[in-house]
Amino acid sequence: MKKIINEPLAVVDEMLEGILKAHPEALKTAGGDLRAIVRADAPIKGKVGIATGGGSGHLPVFMGYVGKGLVDGASIGNVFSSPTTGQMLKVTKGIDGGEGVLYIYGRYQGDIMNFDTAAEMAEDEGIHVETAMVTDDVASAPPKDWQRRRGVAGLFYAYKISGAKAAEGASLTEVKETTEKALSTIRSMGVALGPCTVPAVGKPTFTIGDDEMEIGMGIHGEAGIHRGPMKKADEIAEILVDAVVKDLPYKKGDTVTALVNSLGGTPLEELYILYRRAATLLEERGVTIHRPYVGRYACSMEMQGASLTLMRLDEELKRLLDAPAETPFFVQK
Amino acid sequence: MKKIINEPLAVVDEMLEGILKAHPEALKTAGGDLRAIVRADAPIKGKVGIATGGGSGHLPVFMGYVGKGLVDGASIGNVFSSPTTGQMLKVTKGIDGGEGVLYIYGRYQGDIMNFDTAAEMAEDEGIHVETAMVTDDVASAPPKDWQRRRGVAGLFYAYKISGAKAAEGASLTEVKETTEKALSTIRSMGVALGPCTVPAVGKPTFTIGDDEMEIGMGIHGEAGIHRGPMKKADEIAEILVDAVVKDLPYKKGDTVTALVNSLGGTPLEELYILYRRAATLLEERGVTIHRPYVGRYACSMEMQGASLTLMRLDEELKRLLDAPAETPFFVQK
Repeated sequence: MKKIINEPLAVVDEMLEGILKAHPEALKTAGGDLRAIVRADAPIKGKVGIATGGGSGHLPVFMGYVGKGLVDGASIGNVFSSPTTGQMLKVTKGIDGGEGVLYIYGRYQGDIMNFDTAAEMAEDEGIHVETAMVTDDVASAPPKDWQRRRGVAGLFYAYKISGAKAAEGASLTEVKETTEKALSTIRSMGVALGPCTVPAVGKPTFTIGDDEMEIGMGIHGEAGIHRGPMKKADEIAEILVDAVVKDLPYKKGDTVTALVNSLGGTPLEELYILYRRAATLLEERGVTIHRPYVGRYACSMEMQGASLTLMRLDEELKRLLDAPAETPFFVQK
Repeated sequence: MKKIINEPLAVVDEMLEGILKAHPEALKTAGGDLRAIVRADAPIKGKVGIATGGGSGHLPVFMGYVGKGLVDGASIGNVFSSPTTGQMLKVTKGIDGGEGVLYIYGRYQGDIMNFDTAAEMAEDEGIHVETAMVTDDVASAPPKDWQRRRGVAGLFYAYKISGAKAAEGASLTEVKETTEKALSTIRSMGVALGPCTVPAVGKPTFTIGDDEMEIGMGIHGEAGIHRGPMKKADEIAEILVDAVVKDLPYKKGDTVTALVNSLGGTPLEELYILYRRAATLLEERGVTIHRPYVGRYACSMEMQGASLTLMRLDEELKRLLDAPAETPFFVQK
């Protein structure tokens, strides 16, 4: 394991100290807990609060999306581990502006259990909490069970839409409804080329041959749907587009936003080669792309690979996607 | 070599096609040449044009900084190879708004030769060209020869300052003078942990042991100043801060901006652990950090490692650093 770290067990806290040191104008702790990060101007009176959280190792997910027009706070677990109920509750209390709080997170068992308990505790303290889970990874369950899937890069779109809706002054019910509308049309599929190493474990999350790739692998190295020989970028684009498009399905005449995301180690150069072919394939199917995103939006440290995410846009979702946003990790004018 | 590409020799053109497909509202070609990318609204009448360029493989350097408040155009070579004089000339003509053009690029032999020839050809066509070279890598020559050093992540600061100055309506002489003032106070030092692979070559640019790191290695794998056992993040921070600070030197009472940059493969989590200690070390020396940047600003594809860059700020440089900027790869409000 070759990483720029000190003690493996100190990685998360030292990373958070670095983030707070670099961005004190934007971020602060809630309840004095380094693992509970909220917007520096939280709570915002009269605005629905949006909380997220999950394991570390996915920057800019989760706390990279804490800021204007996105989410209000994030609880941070150890690498690939859920934060605690206590940390989630501190975030909830730290961002409640009197209009309730929406929890948005990827559907993983540890997170579900802890967020549900935090929600009950928050209700006991008079904060109304609703939940919307991100379940965009088409590789993790069949279409009829799409709400039981894992959440991956679609988190970004869930944050963007819900954050913009809350910033418009919508009620908790309205923010939840719009977020769920978005979630129902978000689908992702990824390909993994190489693993990452959890510092406290010290060895790669999985092994894969020099000439192999795995379609549908999860962002923590969960088994995918097919491992086979490494393919060319255009072929990978075809596999990802085909899997995503037929799943919803996206149809001729649809307008979508597309996200080509690096799992971390794959550079921008390769992402744009992938986007080039994916965009053409969507055009050929009569699907129009609005405001594509290409970059590192949901990573697994140095993991090599990429994913494609689509979200179908109606007029409301388009307006919310186009709204400005600003965090230390993501700025959109 | 495991990369999401098609033919190794098609990587650069296909990447550029992907970038233009994703960002047509922001970027276009000049002179019908895919290797000459300029702002979609170029030329801007009455504004000094700023041109850069260099080999591919460094995204967001170079064309990622083509946009509002930054540079106007970039010529793009093959991976780690200089663009041609013809491509540079097309960019120059494509961005000339009647007030002349400033060339800003990292000091590498192939680029110098080609940019100088392009400048002569542009003068023949009535476009006045001035040049400012970025020479921030302290590992590549002794302090007295700082103007003969290689250019690395300091390119970002050179673009930011010159682009903001030009956007204010300054003359070519003024933009050049302010850029040179900035360049004289920019210093960088990097550490490499692992190589990248140039697609057309097919094998890593260098080899390094699993327990080794190299201080001062260049972004193309140029030999550094010391190879030794892998150290902890705090120790690496001390080495980089010490090398950079003593070189200018930065002194007690100085205000600087700091950039902790990934060479590509090193994730954000590690950068913030490095920033945490570097910031403390600078504070202990009485140096104040204004507006730090932490992320991937000048990469070598999947190369693993990081660099620290400082630029000393006076009131003018602070104002220009804080000015807004917007490209498909970098947004600052």
